[in-house]
Amino acid sequence: MELVKDVNLTLVLRLFATFLLVLSACLVAFDSQTKLLFYSILRKASFRDLNALFVLVCIDSAAAAYNVLQILRCSIFPSPKVDKNLAWLCYLLDQAVVYLAFAANSAALQGSLFAITGQNNFQWMKLCNIYTRFCIQIGGALVCGFIACLVLAVISALSAYSLFRLYSPKHFLQLKAK
Amino acid sequence: MELVKDVNLTLVLRLFATFLLVLSACLVAFDSQTKLLFYSILRKASFRDLNALFVLVCIDSAAAAYNVLQILRCSIFPSPKVDKNLAWLCYLLDQAVVYLAFAANSAALQGSLFAITGQNNFQWMKLCNIYTRFCIQIGGALVCGFIACLVLAVISALSAYSLFRLYSPKHFLQLKAK
Repeated sequence: MELVKDVNLTLVLRLFATFLLVLSACLVAFDSQTKLLFYSILRKASFRDLNALFVLVCIDSAAAAYNVLQILRCSIFPSPKVDKNLAWLCYLLDQAVVYLAFAANSAALQGSLFAITGQNNFQWMKLCNIYTRFCIQIGGALVCGFIACLVLAVISALSAYSLFRLYSPKHFLQLKAK
Repeated sequence: MELVKDVNLTLVLRLFATFLLVLSACLVAFDSQTKLLFYSILRKASFRDLNALFVLVCIDSAAAAYNVLQILRCSIFPSPKVDKNLAWLCYLLDQAVVYLAFAANSAALQGSLFAITGQNNFQWMKLCNIYTRFCIQIGGALVCGFIACLVLAVISALSAYSLFRLYSPKHFLQLKAK
């Protein structure tokens, strides 16, 4: 009964994280703005201009796909018995996903900050005063992405919890007696 | 006896992480290169030119200081009894430190990639063909920083382990019977 409550909490969190990741990836991927520069050149800004945004779309999609797989696994095999190896696998995968998503979001944030502020001493010019609507949409995507990372961190804490509570509090790396 | 082994492992890992974090912060902070540009202008590159590197130095130093405090706590009070509140505090702080350090390193990596490759479509010019030695030193610092993040992740997994193994495997968020 208690275990079921735990599993349902993880399921709800995974659904929420998937929603946020898909939203973030879509906001970035379908963002584009065309501007007439210098009265003659038509330039279009899209997420492919900045490698960090492209990587963000890939990693957010992969993380969303992983969470969908986990949701399917939980729904189809709601295993009431606790399996140590499965718990280890889930824990390691969850950790990898949250770190990857966090790194991708941080890198995209750094890239976007350059686009907002520029770097005068490097002669890197600002871009967000030209592509304002584009930048605002990317900002929204990053907010969704960071909230998704927070939810993923909670999920990975829950999977750490469901793994490590199988171990004995007195003996190092030894399973508890049944 | 087993608990002591666990504590010693964490201690060694914390020492290693502190060493790497200090090394990474020093490599970035004491990196500078002066170049004569256009036959007349003397330009000096330092970590203050890029906000991401400045933030990296601050966060790496803070993480190193936190780990020194933890090492002191473990050495002065090698408490053999397990305290739930202390374990929660350590777990949450460890998690916060590893995520912060990881975000700072990813952002600095993104900034450095711009300096290596430039962005032609944004007219952001390359810098590492001018300040080559400077960039190589930053690269070394980032490698140290990412290894430190890996060690910090292992430390936070160990503190998750020492917290969650106190809990019952059958009842949700309920301590194990002594």
